[in-house]
Amino acid sequence: MLKSAQIVSQIQLLIKNGALKAHQKLPSLREQSMQSGFSLMTVLSAYQQLEAQGLIYSKQKSGFYVAGAQVDASSASEALQHTTKIEINSQVFHYLKDTQQQDIIPLCSAFPDHALLFNPRLMSIIAQHAKKRPSYQQNANLPPGNLALRQLIANKYIVQGIATSADDIVITSGALDALNLSLEALTQAGDYILLQQHIFYGAWQASERLGLQVISIPEHPQFGFDLDAFEQALQRYPIKVCWLMLNSHNPIGFTVSDEIKARIGELLQQYQVHLIEDDVYQEMYFGQHKPLSMKFFDQDNDVLHCSSFSKLLGSGTRIGWVHAGRYSEAIQHRQQMRTLSASPLIQNALGDFLSSQHYEKHLRTLRRTLAQNKKQFYQALQRILPNTCEIQYFESGYFLWIKLPESVNADTLYQTLLAENIGISPSSLFNPQHDQSSYFRLNCSFAWSPEIEQACVRIGEMISTLSE
Amino acid sequence: MLKSAQIVSQIQLLIKNGALKAHQKLPSLREQSMQSGFSLMTVLSAYQQLEAQGLIYSKQKSGFYVAGAQVDASSASEALQHTTKIEINSQVFHYLKDTQQQDIIPLCSAFPDHALLFNPRLMSIIAQHAKKRPSYQQNANLPPGNLALRQLIANKYIVQGIATSADDIVITSGALDALNLSLEALTQAGDYILLQQHIFYGAWQASERLGLQVISIPEHPQFGFDLDAFEQALQRYPIKVCWLMLNSHNPIGFTVSDEIKARIGELLQQYQVHLIEDDVYQEMYFGQHKPLSMKFFDQDNDVLHCSSFSKLLGSGTRIGWVHAGRYSEAIQHRQQMRTLSASPLIQNALGDFLSSQHYEKHLRTLRRTLAQNKKQFYQALQRILPNTCEIQYFESGYFLWIKLPESVNADTLYQTLLAENIGISPSSLFNPQHDQSSYFRLNCSFAWSPEIEQACVRIGEMISTLSE
Repeated sequence: MLKSAQIVSQIQLLIKNGALKAHQKLPSLREQSMQSGFSLMTVLSAYQQLEAQGLIYSKQKSGFYVAGAQVDASSASEALQHTTKIEINSQVFHYLKDTQQQDIIPLCSAFPDHALLFNPRLMSIIAQHAKKRPSYQQNANLPPGNLALRQLIANKYIVQGIATSADDIVITSGALDALNLSLEALTQAGDYILLQQHIFYGAWQASERLGLQVISIPEHPQFGFDLDAFEQALQRYPIKVCWLMLNSHNPIGFTVSDEIKARIGELLQQYQVHLIEDDVYQEMYFGQHKPLSMKFFDQDNDVLHCSSFSKLLGSGTRIGWVHAGRYSEAIQHRQQMRTLSASPLIQNALGDFLSSQHYEKHLRTLRRTLAQNKKQFYQALQRILPNTCEIQYFESGYFLWIKLPESVNADTLYQTLLAENIGISPSSLFNPQHDQSSYFRLNCSFAWSPEIEQACVRIGEMISTLSE
Repeated sequence: MLKSAQIVSQIQLLIKNGALKAHQKLPSLREQSMQSGFSLMTVLSAYQQLEAQGLIYSKQKSGFYVAGAQVDASSASEALQHTTKIEINSQVFHYLKDTQQQDIIPLCSAFPDHALLFNPRLMSIIAQHAKKRPSYQQNANLPPGNLALRQLIANKYIVQGIATSADDIVITSGALDALNLSLEALTQAGDYILLQQHIFYGAWQASERLGLQVISIPEHPQFGFDLDAFEQALQRYPIKVCWLMLNSHNPIGFTVSDEIKARIGELLQQYQVHLIEDDVYQEMYFGQHKPLSMKFFDQDNDVLHCSSFSKLLGSGTRIGWVHAGRYSEAIQHRQQMRTLSASPLIQNALGDFLSSQHYEKHLRTLRRTLAQNKKQFYQALQRILPNTCEIQYFESGYFLWIKLPESVNADTLYQTLLAENIGISPSSLFNPQHDQSSYFRLNCSFAWSPEIEQACVRIGEMISTLSE
């Protein structure tokens, strides 16, 4: 028996017998080495094996601790992934640079077709404001941002039954700014964050930048969100904050049910964990009612709900917000040091536009068109792509999430299509842990056209070529 | 003789004899304790005394090192200040909130009177662009920003004899964003940064946020910049980056001569130190020629030059830039994770405006008006303020820097005037080390009026009251 294996089995037994309790600190490497007579390296190896088994976890500069309850460890625990060192920024940087070229067919884009977002009425309101002096005043862009706009945003929560005042809202330079400010306000280097296994790469980038340890939970194949894996992660690791996307999920496209959201809210309260909710696609529903945000199920005011107008009115708006509640001042502190709030001109204009009936009309048209275009893409792709591909279709959002045959790597597919000026988004962008299965995300917001059809035919041909 | 004093004099001697050389690592606390037989606390106390004497310096997580050459230590060294823990954010936050009220007389403002910045021609160009689709395109706000605008900014350097291409320029969300991105690209927590003793509070805030150690050098009473203190700081401390303001300095108002700038450039090269130059007031000169930036004296491409249009065309623009040179990609990396570049609409419009003759005309009028208004303020304040005040007047910028009589504290003056809705900026905002002498900054960009005169009279009366 290896020396390290002796330590491993000894600690396994102590945990099983209850001699070592959940969240109890283990002897330090040095102490364990002196007690056992084994070298530091042997003890370290043993601790790392126990960590890989999910029996213990480490905290930066503090040491090793016994993990939480081991119930059901057999099923979900293998699916939980613990990432201490993320490296995704360089990949995302080059992806964005490469797919930013003018002549790319942008099936990779995270935005709806900009032809659908352009609203002449909003543009004319901006033009009117541009000629007025008040839209250009000195203090208009200091945090928390334009009061009238904050009140209008607060009203959108109120009509969903979520008590909100303008003071809860902080205007930001887009949703990415809102998400980053929220994460900075809630975490310190070394803290644990819980992410969905596939999520907007900005979540991984921010975790890398802030030196966080990531626990990721797999998606549920049917319901989108795996409550068992979620609860197990909360039990097992000292999670400080979750960053989740539950409505028109990017990249996959599902919307999580109210029942599951209610349970997520209970678990957040039970484990006293904060949630940063990325809800930039909240308006992209196909049904009668806008899906609820986690703010509706937020019992302790622990949810920071982030969204923006960029996916609705164009990336040129660069206006996002966070429903920050009691964290409003902490977030404004950080804004004041960095970016202030956002263009006062656009804030003023948006205020006027939102209080007209044109905004809701714009959204209704946008949703109807997106639903139609996505269905058309889905039907066409079922015909065009090789039947070794598995197309995941959900009734929300404008993404299709496509599983490739095992022999085809999505990164290779991405690179070869890029050479033909066709953009797709490989799954490694959304999950830097590099799963065995490869997927890609396709933007289906565009009107079907001969050019789009030709691009999709090439995607299909390339998949066939690569799988030979 | 105290035990710690024994260690102190021993190490002093070893440094003097050359047995311990500049930047050589001292024995660790534990080693020194074992060698000397004294306790850890005694050794720590000795090292702290040596650090206070400027003979050694500490590096986070690394240990203690012998400081650089001790020449002329008598004069300037006492003026160098070493700040390891900055706490200014909370003060700045409340200052900005308090002085942001609508009815404040904004003699505290860092911006010129907005009546001078409002340009109807620019506004009508923005209005035209707001109606066009391209200004709202998806990728237009990805780093490094609008190409035409970057080329126009590059041209401004070229006409000053500074070889620059559009690729050197990165567009940011205002100068504050440019400065922060530059500092993040160049430093890690624990690094040494050199600041002027009084400087825009954003420099202190950024240093606090990033956990930097600050070495600050006093201003030269005649020339603005103290070259001796600067060289001594570079000799003595392992400075990684300097953050300086040399043109129309905020808060004091001086502009440093070309001769001094040339020498700063030589020293930066000699000590291989980077410079982040805050040059937001570069256009605020009263003479015939725009003062040179440090990019002109930048031999190794180590200067990151930051500026913006906010002080020229209104804070509503929120467009700044950094001449980033070889750091362009590092800065774009950080932008992509946070704020992207800036409003594509305003970038497009600015491009058109800058390439017309209206921009230079706007600047000429602005400069002429600011020079007139500042002179009028200066003459009136000499009459109005008690003669125990010392008004510092420089031929650039729109600030006056006023030294209070010894018995008057600028923070107290600020608070009492705030209660009467008069805003001034106390010196503690620009130097959190709290000097004995108190100053305040007065914004003199406004046209003299009965309301302004009344406010200045109240400032004078309050100073007299507080000095009784």
